[in-house]
Amino acid sequence: MTLVTEEPDDDVPSGGAATERTRVRRFPKRGHYDRATIHAVIDAGLLCHVGYVIDGQPYVTPTMHWRVGEHVYWHGSSASKMLRAQKAAIPVCVTVSLLDGIVFARSGFNHSINYRCVMALGRAELVEDETEKLETLVAFSDRLAPGRWSDLRPPTKQEMKATTVMRVDLDEAVAKVRSGPPGDDEPDYALPVWAGVLPLSMAVGTPVACPRLDPATPVPACFESLVTG
Amino acid sequence: MTLVTEEPDDDVPSGGAATERTRVRRFPKRGHYDRATIHAVIDAGLLCHVGYVIDGQPYVTPTMHWRVGEHVYWHGSSASKMLRAQKAAIPVCVTVSLLDGIVFARSGFNHSINYRCVMALGRAELVEDETEKLETLVAFSDRLAPGRWSDLRPPTKQEMKATTVMRVDLDEAVAKVRSGPPGDDEPDYALPVWAGVLPLSMAVGTPVACPRLDPATPVPACFESLVTG
Repeated sequence: MTLVTEEPDDDVPSGGAATERTRVRRFPKRGHYDRATIHAVIDAGLLCHVGYVIDGQPYVTPTMHWRVGEHVYWHGSSASKMLRAQKAAIPVCVTVSLLDGIVFARSGFNHSINYRCVMALGRAELVEDETEKLETLVAFSDRLAPGRWSDLRPPTKQEMKATTVMRVDLDEAVAKVRSGPPGDDEPDYALPVWAGVLPLSMAVGTPVACPRLDPATPVPACFESLVTG
Repeated sequence: MTLVTEEPDDDVPSGGAATERTRVRRFPKRGHYDRATIHAVIDAGLLCHVGYVIDGQPYVTPTMHWRVGEHVYWHGSSASKMLRAQKAAIPVCVTVSLLDGIVFARSGFNHSINYRCVMALGRAELVEDETEKLETLVAFSDRLAPGRWSDLRPPTKQEMKATTVMRVDLDEAVAKVRSGPPGDDEPDYALPVWAGVLPLSMAVGTPVACPRLDPATPVPACFESLVTG
């Protein structure tokens, strides 16, 4: 995605529709409600954090996610406490965050981070249709390793039963993005202290084969192209 | 920290005390309740996700965190909706997650991720004492760039007032850790499909100076030692 350079003086959010719950108020320019930005941030993240409430206590569980159209999906064991609670269509918040850098300013107060995140509010929906459930699990697999699903041993009926797939609609979602250099108070620019951004990103290492793998088995090409560090 | 190699057949959790809300039930061996493991995971992460509830809706907000002793701290603008709500000592869940790799198995069902995460449950506490507040902000700065605080323009009274610092006690916390190769069904090991782990980690890039910085200003040594990719 294209990162929008922050302009703190411009308080007009970009396109799309905010709700009272998703409107970004303090730095409105950081808020994005258009589908393209929301989809791009979700698709760039591997891990989401799902927030839900049991007996008045919020829980935040990290789990991998994937997107198909206007829904974000996650899955897990049908026995998990989180998923058993969410099957009752309780309110959830699914947040996807990417930390792109630490922004070092000339004063402590003006420090910040560069990031992309999406917060999606809604009710957890159980994916009940067996065909849809299988198709979306294939989509999840294809996201990580395109085409590899057909090489795997197919899921058994019992495995499908033991797997719960949930989703949330992106109807009420907001992306927040900050990028660019520090924004210091004007007199502070003269201070003789280093200021700038320490970039952060996710590095993909060299694939580590299972110790029980036949060494002649080739690493899928889709993994090799991912290795960055 | 030392990652514990998973042994799914061993269901004895390691030391420390679980509560009914934090006990890891499905893979008990992944659960750790000892201080050393909990502290190490929190200290290894830069970003936490804070869960809180407003009008019955959970929200999950990503923000940087730091730890001092048995508390995890986070901060932000005193005007933020999140922090204004949390000042009322509402229940929160602070989750710190590190995604260490994607575990590719011989069946879709046995796929997993290698990760370290901590979930801390408790009530949000406002740091009200001005001295403690300043000291902990210095600790936060020192965590990212040791010693750099003294080079910065000191905070004004107004800036301190505009900054809210929150914390949560680690009394009720759990670490969950998975590492190691895939655990496949015994007959599946014979399948001719690649299986193993795709390692993931956070890479620190080359510092990018603020465009308004005097080019003669040296990059702090503590940043250069962090650069990994």
